[in-house]
Amino acid sequence: MINPVIKIECDDQKGIIANISTELFQADLNLVNNQEFVDPVSKRFFMRTEIEGEFQPETILKSLEAKLPEGAAVELILPRKKKILLLVTKEAHCLGDLLIRCSHDEMNAEIVAVISNHNSLKDLVDKFNTPFHFASHQDLSREEHEKVISEIIGRYDCDLIVLAKYMRILSEAFTLKYKGKLINIHHSFLPAFVGANPYRQAYERGVKIIGATSHFVTSALDEGPIIAQDVMHVEHHHSAKSLALAGKDIEKAVLARALNLALEDRVFINGNKTVIFDG
Amino acid sequence: MINPVIKIECDDQKGIIANISTELFQADLNLVNNQEFVDPVSKRFFMRTEIEGEFQPETILKSLEAKLPEGAAVELILPRKKKILLLVTKEAHCLGDLLIRCSHDEMNAEIVAVISNHNSLKDLVDKFNTPFHFASHQDLSREEHEKVISEIIGRYDCDLIVLAKYMRILSEAFTLKYKGKLINIHHSFLPAFVGANPYRQAYERGVKIIGATSHFVTSALDEGPIIAQDVMHVEHHHSAKSLALAGKDIEKAVLARALNLALEDRVFINGNKTVIFDG
Amino acid sequence: MINPVIKIECDDQKGIIANISTELFQADLNLVNNQEFVDPVSKRFFMRTEIEGEFQPETILKSLEAKLPEGAAVELILPRKKKILLLVTKEAHCLGDLLIRCSHDEMNAEIVAVISNHNSLKDLVDKFNTPFHFASHQDLSREEHEKVISEIIGRYDCDLIVLAKYMRILSEAFTLKYKGKLINIHHSFLPAFVGANPYRQAYERGVKIIGATSHFVTSALDEGPIIAQDVMHVEHHHSAKSLALAGKDIEKAVLARALNLALEDRVFINGNKTVIFDG
Amino acid sequence: MINPVIKIECDDQKGIIANISTELFQADLNLVNNQEFVDPVSKRFFMRTEIEGEFQPETILKSLEAKLPEGAAVELILPRKKKILLLVTKEAHCLGDLLIRCSHDEMNAEIVAVISNHNSLKDLVDKFNTPFHFASHQDLSREEHEKVISEIIGRYDCDLIVLAKYMRILSEAFTLKYKGKLINIHHSFLPAFVGANPYRQAYERGVKIIGATSHFVTSALDEGPIIAQDVMHVEHHHSAKSLALAGKDIEKAVLARALNLALEDRVFINGNKTVIFDG
Repeated sequence: MINPVIKIECDDQKGIIANISTELFQADLNLVNNQEFVDPVSKRFFMRTEIEGEFQPETILKSLEAKLPEGAAVELILPRKKKILLLVTKEAHCLGDLLIRCSHDEMNAEIVAVISNHNSLKDLVDKFNTPFHFASHQDLSREEHEKVISEIIGRYDCDLIVLAKYMRILSEAFTLKYKGKLINIHHSFLPAFVGANPYRQAYERGVKIIGATSHFVTSALDEGPIIAQDVMHVEHHHSAKSLALAGKDIEKAVLARALNLALEDRVFINGNKTVIFDG
Repeated sequence: MINPVIKIECDDQKGIIANISTELFQADLNLVNNQEFVDPVSKRFFMRTEIEGEFQPETILKSLEAKLPEGAAVELILPRKKKILLLVTKEAHCLGDLLIRCSHDEMNAEIVAVISNHNSLKDLVDKFNTPFHFASHQDLSREEHEKVISEIIGRYDCDLIVLAKYMRILSEAFTLKYKGKLINIHHSFLPAFVGANPYRQAYERGVKIIGATSHFVTSALDEGPIIAQDVMHVEHHHSAKSLALAGKDIEKAVLARALNLALEDRVFINGNKTVIFDG
Repeated sequence: MINPVIKIECDDQKGIIANISTELFQADLNLVNNQEFVDPVSKRFFMRTEIEGEFQPETILKSLEAKLPEGAAVELILPRKKKILLLVTKEAHCLGDLLIRCSHDEMNAEIVAVISNHNSLKDLVDKFNTPFHFASHQDLSREEHEKVISEIIGRYDCDLIVLAKYMRILSEAFTLKYKGKLINIHHSFLPAFVGANPYRQAYERGVKIIGATSHFVTSALDEGPIIAQDVMHVEHHHSAKSLALAGKDIEKAVLARALNLALEDRVFINGNKTVIFDG
Repeated sequence: MINPVIKIECDDQKGIIANISTELFQADLNLVNNQEFVDPVSKRFFMRTEIEGEFQPETILKSLEAKLPEGAAVELILPRKKKILLLVTKEAHCLGDLLIRCSHDEMNAEIVAVISNHNSLKDLVDKFNTPFHFASHQDLSREEHEKVISEIIGRYDCDLIVLAKYMRILSEAFTLKYKGKLINIHHSFLPAFVGANPYRQAYERGVKIIGATSHFVTSALDEGPIIAQDVMHVEHHHSAKSLALAGKDIEKAVLARALNLALEDRVFINGNKTVIFDG
C-alpha cells in the first residue's frame, strides 16, 4: 500500500533528474509518484519520489549521493509507523484527537509519550496506555524547565515532537536542539494575531473568519515555516469564548493535516517556508 | 452564559410576534437573541428566542399557548446538559470524537450509552466509563434486532439518538418510533452517492470534492431533513481507500456541528427540510 | 419578491420587541423575516425585519420612533435599486465584475459613475455607458485631490461609495465626510498584511492561504468594521505575482458579497465591528 | 515567466522517467517543475514538466517519441495565448467574467468568437469587439442546428470550446467531433442534480451546500471527466431562485479555474476522470 519514499534537496543544476532517475532505473526500481520543484529565487531543488521494487537501502543512498551536487540531502524512508512525542498544557481537543487517530489506525504514527506542564490531562492519556510525564514549570527558570523536558524526551526515540496546544514559549536553545522536528499548532490564521489570546484579539477586531496554523517551530515566536492552515466563518454573535470553542475544531483538523503531511514525508523546509508535495 | 430558549412553530398569521413578545414583556423577560422565519411556500412560522429574567416555566408556556394559533408547538428549554445515546458499528472516528468532546466540556451533552452491532469498539467506550451494549444482529431478523436495540434504548432517558457511523438500515417502524430524535452522519455529500460505498462511488466518478451530510433519519434511506453538510477537496491520486480515510475528518466535523446545532435548540424540522437559526 | 425592510438600532431595554411588533401589528403589517441581536458588551439592540402589507412610510416611522428609547435610529427602506459610485485605480477585475452584475440584473444596484485617478479603465467603463471621471492626483496634495473627487461625487445622488481597488489612502476628513457609506476591498485577510503589497508580504511569509477583506472605511488604514472575508488555499509554487493574480478572484467575490449584504440592508455598524443579519 | 511544457501520456514501464530526463538533459534543458503520476489501476503514466533552455521543438519531440513505449502521446507546448470559442445561451455571468478576464490579461486566452442560440447576449459581446454569431435552434433538428454551429466553429482556429452556460444537450456525434476540446460548466455539484433545474432540485431536497462542476463533455449527459468543482453554503431562507442567483458566483469561479488549468496544460483525461498537475 505505502511505498518507500526518496527525498532529495540540493542546489539546482541541469541533469539532476536524469542522474537520479537513471540511477534508480539501473537499480531496477519503478518511480510511481514523483514530484520536483525548483525554487526560482533560491535556486534550490526539491524532489520526492515513491519507488517500487527490491533494493538495498544503503546501496541506493550511496549511489544517489555520488550523483548529486555536494551538500545534497538525500533520505530514503522505508514505510513504518513513525514515533511522535506530544507536549501539551491543559486543552484536550488536539491531544484527544491524536490519541484516537493513533490508536485506531487513522494516523500512521505511534504516540510514545506525552509531556505536560500541568497534570490535568493525565487521566485522558492514561486511558490510552501511553506514558504521561508531568513536568511542572513551577519555581523553575525556562532553562531549568526545558532541561527537565529534554531529559524526558531523551528517554524516547521519536521522529517528531508535536506541540499539541503547549502554551509555553520555548527558548532558542530548545528550538535549535530539535530543529526540524518540532511542529506546533497556533490558534490563529498566522500572521494575524501572533502571540497570546488570539481569539480575544479576533473578537476585538470583529473578523468574519478565524483560523489555525500549523508550523515548524523556530526561535522566532509563531514565525516558523507554515505547513498547513485553515479557517472557518464566524458571525457577530460569537464571543471571544465561543470563538475559542469553535476554533478548536479547526485547530485539531489543521494539526492532524500537517502531521499527516510530515508523517508521509511530503514536507521540505525551504528557508522560512515549506515545499509540500501533496500529489 | 447560556440562556433559556423558547422554540415556537405554528401556521403563520399576523400578530404572532406581537402576541409573543408582549406576553414575554409582561412576564418581565428580556429577549436577547431572536430569530423568526416564515416559509413562503408552506406558510409555516418558526421562532427561536433566548430569554433573560426570572420566570415559572409552566406559567410562561401556558400563557404563550393561549396566544398562539391552534396546533402551535411551543417549547421552553432550560439550560442543561442533554443526554445522547450513540449507535455505532465498527468505525472509531465519530465515536471517539464525541467521547472526547463530551468528557472535556467541548460539547454540552452527556453520552448515556453506546450500542453497537459489533464488539470491536467496546475497549474505546470502556475507557470513558460509558455503558457499552453489544447487540449483535447475527441470526436475527431486522425486526428482532431492532427490538433488542429498542429495549436497550428504553433503559435510558435520552434526548437524541445519534447514528455515529451505524451501518445498518433501519426499519420504517424504528424511524417512526424515534421520529425527530434520530440524527445520522452519511459519508457523502447527499444527494450524491446515496447508499453503500459512497467513497467507492466517488472514486469511480472521479469527483474533485467529497463530503458528508448529517440529517434526521426518516424511513426513506438517506433522504431525511439535512442539518449540516461540508466538503473537502481531493485529487486524482486518491484511491477509494484514501478517500474514505480523508473523509473521516469531514464526517466527524459535520456530525459534531449538526449535534451542536441540535443541542442548542437551533434546528426545526420543516417537512423534508430544516430551518436552522444559527445567529 | 423583495419586501420593505425596517432597521432599528438603539440601547437595549425590556419590551422593545413587544413595542415594535405591537405597533406593526396594529398597522396591519406582517413580519415575514425578523432578526434581533443584543450586543452583550455594549448592550446595544439591533433589529432587521421584512414586512408585508400596505402602509404609509412616514406614519410607520413616526409611530415606531415614539415607542423607542431616545437616540434610536430607525430606517424604513422601500425596495428599490440602490445607486453606487465606484472609485478605482488601474485594476479591472472588481470594476468589471460589478459592471457585468449591475448591467445584467445580478446585483440590485445601478452604477451612477466611476471615478479613477488613472485613465486606463476608461475604455472598459465606456462600454457600459457609465460616466467615467478621470481625476488625476498628479501635482495635487491629498486635500486638493480629494476635493476634486468630492466635487464629482457631489454631482451624483448615491447610496454607497465603493473603493473597488482604489489604491490611494484617504484622509480622515474624507472618511468622516462619507462615514458609513464607504466600502473598501482590501487584498488580504485582515488584520494580516495591512498596508501595501500584501501579496508580496504573503509570499515572503510563506502562508498556505490568502484572502480578501471588505470593510467600511474609517480614518485608520485597513481598520474599519469588517463586512465580509474569504480565503483560498495556495501552494509553495506560487510567486508573489501569481498570488496577486489568483487573489483577484477572492477580491471580487468578497466585494460583491459585502455589497450585496449592504444593498439588502443586512449590515449594521457596531463600533469597530458589524452586525450582519443574513438569515 | 511562463515556460514551455511537455505533456506525456503512455502505458507505464520502468525507466520512462530516466529515458525522458536523460534525453532532455542531453538536449541541455533544465526541468524546473516536474510531476509524474501512475494510475495504479490502469497502469497509465502521466507526466508534465516545465523546461528551460534553447531547443528545436521538432527535434525534442522526435527524440522523446523514440524513447517512449508505442502509442505514447507527447506534446510540447510553447507559451502562447490560446484561442477559445464560447457557446452560450442567455446568462451573462460566465460570459461576462471571461470577457473581462481575457480583455485585461487575467486569463491567458483570446476569445475568438461567441456563438449563441439566442440573441440576447449580443450587446454584451459587441462591447468587447468579439464576433458574435446568433445560431437559432428554432425549427431545426438537433443535427441541423449542430451543423450550423459546427460550420461557424470551422471558421475559427480554436484550442478549446467552452460551454459557458450553453443550455442545449449536444449529440453524441458533436461531442465526438470535438472530443477533449469541449469544456462545460454544470450548475450543480455533480453527480448530484444531473440534468435540468438543479437549483430547483437542490431547493426541494433542502441541501445546505450548492456547487458547480466543470467537466469535459462526452456523449453521456453531465458524466464527462471532472476538472474542477466548488461549493458554497446556503440556508433555509434561500428560494430556488435565490439559490440560482447565488450559484452564479460559484459557476463562474469554477469555470474560470477549470479553464486556467486547461490553458496551462495541467489537465490529462484519464478514462472518465482527470489527472491534474497543479503544483
